[in-house]
Amino acid sequence: MSGCPYFQKRDVLFQSRQQQKDEGERDDSQDGTNKASKGGIIYGDYLQLDKIVTAQTLQSELKGNKIHDEHLFIVTHQAYELWFKQILWELDSVRDIFISGHVRDERNMLKVTTRTHRIVMIFRLLVDQFAVLETMTALDFFDFREYLSPASGFQSLQFRLLENKIGVPDNQRVPYNRRHYRDNFRGEDSKLLLSSEEEPTLLQLVEKWLERTPGLEENGFNFWGKLEANIAVGLKREREKLETKPESEDKDEQMAEFTKQREVLESLFDEKRHDHLMSKGERRLSYKALQGALMIYFYREEPRFQVPFQLLTSLMDIDTLMTKWRYNHVCMVHRMIGSKAGTGGSSGYHYLRSTVSDRYKVFVDLFNLATFLVPRHWVPKLNPTEHPFLFTADTCCDSSYCSSVSDDSD
Amino acid sequence: MSGCPYFQKRDVLFQSRQQQKDEGERDDSQDGTNKASKGGIIYGDYLQLDKIVTAQTLQSELKGNKIHDEHLFIVTHQAYELWFKQILWELDSVRDIFISGHVRDERNMLKVTTRTHRIVMIFRLLVDQFAVLETMTALDFFDFREYLSPASGFQSLQFRLLENKIGVPDNQRVPYNRRHYRDNFRGEDSKLLLSSEEEPTLLQLVEKWLERTPGLEENGFNFWGKLEANIAVGLKREREKLETKPESEDKDEQMAEFTKQREVLESLFDEKRHDHLMSKGERRLSYKALQGALMIYFYREEPRFQVPFQLLTSLMDIDTLMTKWRYNHVCMVHRMIGSKAGTGGSSGYHYLRSTVSDRYKVFVDLFNLATFLVPRHWVPKLNPTEHPFLFTADTCCDSSYCSSVSDDSD
Amino acid sequence: MSGCPYFQKRDVLFQSRQQQKDEGERDDSQDGTNKASKGGIIYGDYLQLDKIVTAQTLQSELKGNKIHDEHLFIVTHQAYELWFKQILWELDSVRDIFISGHVRDERNMLKVTTRTHRIVMIFRLLVDQFAVLETMTALDFFDFREYLSPASGFQSLQFRLLENKIGVPDNQRVPYNRRHYRDNFRGEDSKLLLSSEEEPTLLQLVEKWLERTPGLEENGFNFWGKLEANIAVGLKREREKLETKPESEDKDEQMAEFTKQREVLESLFDEKRHDHLMSKGERRLSYKALQGALMIYFYREEPRFQVPFQLLTSLMDIDTLMTKWRYNHVCMVHRMIGSKAGTGGSSGYHYLRSTVSDRYKVFVDLFNLATFLVPRHWVPKLNPTEHPFLFTADTCCDSSYCSSVSDDSD
Amino acid sequence: MSGCPYFQKRDVLFQSRQQQKDEGERDDSQDGTNKASKGGIIYGDYLQLDKIVTAQTLQSELKGNKIHDEHLFIVTHQAYELWFKQILWELDSVRDIFISGHVRDERNMLKVTTRTHRIVMIFRLLVDQFAVLETMTALDFFDFREYLSPASGFQSLQFRLLENKIGVPDNQRVPYNRRHYRDNFRGEDSKLLLSSEEEPTLLQLVEKWLERTPGLEENGFNFWGKLEANIAVGLKREREKLETKPESEDKDEQMAEFTKQREVLESLFDEKRHDHLMSKGERRLSYKALQGALMIYFYREEPRFQVPFQLLTSLMDIDTLMTKWRYNHVCMVHRMIGSKAGTGGSSGYHYLRSTVSDRYKVFVDLFNLATFLVPRHWVPKLNPTEHPFLFTADTCCDSSYCSSVSDDSD
Repeated sequence: MSGCPYFQKRDVLFQSRQQQKDEGERDDSQDGTNKASKGGIIYGDYLQLDKIVTAQTLQSELKGNKIHDEHLFIVTHQAYELWFKQILWELDSVRDIFISGHVRDERNMLKVTTRTHRIVMIFRLLVDQFAVLETMTALDFFDFREYLSPASGFQSLQFRLLENKIGVPDNQRVPYNRRHYRDNFRGEDSKLLLSSEEEPTLLQLVEKWLERTPGLEENGFNFWGKLEANIAVGLKREREKLETKPESEDKDEQMAEFTKQREVLESLFDEKRHDHLMSKGERRLSYKALQGALMIYFYREEPRFQVPFQLLTSLMDIDTLMTKWRYNHVCMVHRMIGSKAGTGGSSGYHYLRSTVSDRYKVFVDLFNLATFLVPRHWVPKLNPTEHPFLFTADTCCDSSYCSSVSDDSD
Repeated sequence: MSGCPYFQKRDVLFQSRQQQKDEGERDDSQDGTNKASKGGIIYGDYLQLDKIVTAQTLQSELKGNKIHDEHLFIVTHQAYELWFKQILWELDSVRDIFISGHVRDERNMLKVTTRTHRIVMIFRLLVDQFAVLETMTALDFFDFREYLSPASGFQSLQFRLLENKIGVPDNQRVPYNRRHYRDNFRGEDSKLLLSSEEEPTLLQLVEKWLERTPGLEENGFNFWGKLEANIAVGLKREREKLETKPESEDKDEQMAEFTKQREVLESLFDEKRHDHLMSKGERRLSYKALQGALMIYFYREEPRFQVPFQLLTSLMDIDTLMTKWRYNHVCMVHRMIGSKAGTGGSSGYHYLRSTVSDRYKVFVDLFNLATFLVPRHWVPKLNPTEHPFLFTADTCCDSSYCSSVSDDSD
Repeated sequence: MSGCPYFQKRDVLFQSRQQQKDEGERDDSQDGTNKASKGGIIYGDYLQLDKIVTAQTLQSELKGNKIHDEHLFIVTHQAYELWFKQILWELDSVRDIFISGHVRDERNMLKVTTRTHRIVMIFRLLVDQFAVLETMTALDFFDFREYLSPASGFQSLQFRLLENKIGVPDNQRVPYNRRHYRDNFRGEDSKLLLSSEEEPTLLQLVEKWLERTPGLEENGFNFWGKLEANIAVGLKREREKLETKPESEDKDEQMAEFTKQREVLESLFDEKRHDHLMSKGERRLSYKALQGALMIYFYREEPRFQVPFQLLTSLMDIDTLMTKWRYNHVCMVHRMIGSKAGTGGSSGYHYLRSTVSDRYKVFVDLFNLATFLVPRHWVPKLNPTEHPFLFTADTCCDSSYCSSVSDDSD
Repeated sequence: MSGCPYFQKRDVLFQSRQQQKDEGERDDSQDGTNKASKGGIIYGDYLQLDKIVTAQTLQSELKGNKIHDEHLFIVTHQAYELWFKQILWELDSVRDIFISGHVRDERNMLKVTTRTHRIVMIFRLLVDQFAVLETMTALDFFDFREYLSPASGFQSLQFRLLENKIGVPDNQRVPYNRRHYRDNFRGEDSKLLLSSEEEPTLLQLVEKWLERTPGLEENGFNFWGKLEANIAVGLKREREKLETKPESEDKDEQMAEFTKQREVLESLFDEKRHDHLMSKGERRLSYKALQGALMIYFYREEPRFQVPFQLLTSLMDIDTLMTKWRYNHVCMVHRMIGSKAGTGGSSGYHYLRSTVSDRYKVFVDLFNLATFLVPRHWVPKLNPTEHPFLFTADTCCDSSYCSSVSDDSD
């Protein structure tokens, strides 16, 4: 940054031995006016700007017809890819915390939610970023569009990895030109994609974690059993109240509405229906995980559920923002290349349009749970004696925390 | 982008001969399932992603203490540098249009304003982009901050070029640690900076262009002379009106206020005062250019001034956004490293704070012109017969426009 | 605003006589320390804050169960309605300029584009504004949702007026619960809606204006005729080039692609097809207006077309942002109430989903024109002698401009 | 919203008895086609739109010179005031949780952080909102500015309340025109302001809460004592390491830097210095509260500190955004009215400029704590056996949670 003093201080205090040694080996011959040369790393090298700001080659220029706006087109896409890299970095670290089981140490939940929230913030930026590319008109784009063939955003490896790692399932993808999405990639890239499909997705990891929500144990608090019972009682009372009303068109309507609501709530406890919806891809979380999510919803104010609740919220944010990103993308494409409606052949616009769909919403179940909310007094009373919040500090003795100063001496 | 069909179409229709030849030479041996391989360029190669997404080397990892958040720090700064590159691209092209004199062809004004506005849109994004880096806390930053020494944002070549090319003057820069800003750079970079100081800045180019504003000619419409006369008459009438009021505290106040306003307006025509303010750096545009700017303000609805007026607005936008960027930067630095108040030594925070100043506002005169507005009926009446809007199409016969289809045959 | 000194200055200089009289009549009895009381208007009265900040009545509180988050719900919707009011204000003024014929004075184009662009900026804010309401969770909403029945966003008069005045046609609306949208309104509101359907829409006004684009006259420059001829020649040449290539699978593909492109371009000149598409609602602009729009696209750098081109861009921006607003709305509703999929009955979520559709894109033709772009050298050469840019200043003598200072004397 | 189906469902299921009674009393005479009329509340009445969208009276119109852009000016300021109302709503509720002592129940921390975060989101919107008003130019503003006198943003009651309730102290305010800020208000408003100064501020409440941070007890974990000891040991080791290096200019520099760092860290434990800084207004939190904040920083990953850490982060966000808001405001004022530099008299621009200062940063200490960070291994090891996270569910039996369904019967 302009004069960013972040790292310009020579924090000699905390330099590692390694670094001090590195500096000892520096070339002193150039000393003098320029302090920046005195060992250590300088800004441009640190950021590898020799790669970053030299990576803009205009195809139009190579073809002898340099078009000014192609530069914007390149830089915008590179910025997207830079941020995709960062999202993958965060996503992989979150997945690792789940995969390694470190998530069982409640202290790691701060990392999980913070990093998930960071992904949210990046996507928010990416959604806004379209405003820059939209300063290019269809006519400007037309001037160099021909030179780009057959390059295509379909070939963005990182975006596909991102989708796979979050949990967009292969069978929910809209086929494009009747081809499998992976056919756009070869060699190493294709392998990376395949393995990203085979690794546990964020969806699957969250699912396993939700299944372990304390309070679900049937021989313990038995949240699900209690909830089903409470709902049955509650519905019964509501119906009785309705029935005492004098006959009227209004009552009929209310009764019809009540019946619908009852069906909705009862369907929640129909495991077979759940499995059927899963097989169709309309639900993605296991029956048990759904129960855990609803439990976190209802008891979100309990200290141990506050941060998990934030995590579920961030997961929905990611889904929403990815879908907004897709939609903004569609809008821009419509503006740039039109719809080519009625000319036959697959239209890029219409393909993209079809991906703005709940099929691509990975955590769709978290949204749909809103359908199953009930009045607070129907929620089973939490038994205060059964679920002590384990004090996790007693497992704190990992290297980063517990080494005392005296251990640090050499 | 994900499935961006922008350029995935084989626009055979408009392929250049060169391109067709390139495709003719493609290696067919890999043909088969993957169409992307059939000649042409693919997405990753086009964007040189092998450079872009491999340029993240964590110093903390090199030093054996990998800190997760350093990746965000690197990517954010790289994204800033990518966009700085784009801004320089637009800025240079706008400056070229002015330098080459192409700006005299009114048709080029669309390019000038569109590209200037694009810089505005990019800066808007850059201001928002801090929200992403702010997901890193001071504590996260502390964990790897030591490894970055002595790299510093001061060493951002592009940002300095940007400032120079827009027109931040050397003598208005706040010195940091008593050193000249260029001392942070060496070799090629230092030369680039020097030459950016010597080339015409955007400020200077806009100044020359404003000086040519039609209507300023003293022996023609003589806007300035007419305006001075009108203001004199207007002020005289106002004073007379005030004087007829009965004596009162209120009248005294209004008279005092009137006197102040009169002094402001009269100072506008004091060329010596203008030159004095210029010598102190409080004004940046020549006396003549100031007149042109005010003329565009007052006659902005005239067809020939509509787009110039938009340009002046965009120039203010750039100034405002650069200063917001600086301020957001200060806010973040405060959060990341505190102020170190009272400990002696130069504080990065306080230095940056001092750069959020009108000293760095290049087009400060355009803002300050708001001080000199007068009622619409004081503005000299435009003589309709004197300034025909030259129809520029009669100079249109440059290659891109006038080659007819028949000329294109071979 | 906090200490906003905008209007706190007593600009005695320019006070109208009326105002001075008003002040003379002020109640001096309260004079003393507080200067704000000395006549004139104070901030809170000016903004009618007694109405604005007292208009938040929580239904939940009235029903004896005050829910904190209902306040956010109310304020957010009120903020939306405030901004809708502003959009209508701008929209009506733009429509008035067109309706009154003032648009024929080119000087008014600055107002038209500036105000249209302001609508764009407001919609951009409204799209972002969802982020605030999204801090409310489905569970918070559930707590007071019951109290709101049967109020519904369907009943937003201003939003419907907005749609009508821009040009969403009645027959393109998705019916909700099998009822006409106007059935949600009664009395005065219903009349307002009906008349907004009968008044000229922005779409219709822009259409008439586009039809008058200079250069379309068949016995003049005859843009359309020239373009058709040029395209015919261009296509012929392309086909000939393709045919000379040796037979290959690749050539077949290119030929197929060429045929498609040719059909697209030729369809442009098929007036019957255009009328057919119009009758289906897939096109909205008349054949002539379409020609004008394309002409502005191709000659956008001509001085007289620069601002019109900006206008067309802003119109697309409005369409895009309205559709993004709709989509963000859908996303939020999904989060708040789920989809109730599979329970039968009309789902609010699915209804809203269906309104995020090109059916609601008023200026869809401007987007689709991107389909019909051709290489620059196919565009007919503008005849420089035929279309002088009329210097409109000679019609400038309306009151606001041409009254000289001397005319102002009394 | 347009067709927002949020509340349009007749959720008969969960209607309170009260509501059902209300509906029973509805006027059936208007039944028929319009279902919305069937009892309950409709959208426009719910939002009191009769007040909201009729509160725009243009002073310029009253004075016989209607200026189009005044409407934007009014609506923008009203939107600000609406959101200020919402911020006050959240702020008061957070303060109430602290004042009432409910914050001791850890379950309420979710409310506290969520609502504080909501204030952050609102301020983010308000910062962006300037972009809309900036579509008005200085010239447009000049046309109606005279009519507003002497109304002033200084007179925004809500903004002053906001500042007071967060904790901007009276003695840190920049005086304007040598007058006390409260002199701009009278009667009821003045009383409200005075009492807002006397009530506990958010700053004070957070201070008390921080002082209770578990782990600060001197006869318990004694965080502060342990930290001081660790830092002493750590500094001693660092100096020893430095001293073993061979003499060189570089070593001298490092030693000088080390001395500075040592002074900074040692100053942390100098209570007298702290009190001195407090008396000057450079620190705002008590010595004990500062310790609590630093403790939360260092142990933020402990489950019981995760949400408190988020709260501290949000408090900094509020400070930062308020200061960005002030700065954006300054930028706009500069554009609208210029600086009037050198004309004598107090300049609104320069006054506002001076309020963009750390004097107005309420939680400045939280930022400055970044100055006192130390390596993780210097942080005292948390004694796992001493601070069990109290399971708060055993105090859960308040009405909203623990009433079982059976208790609900009547």
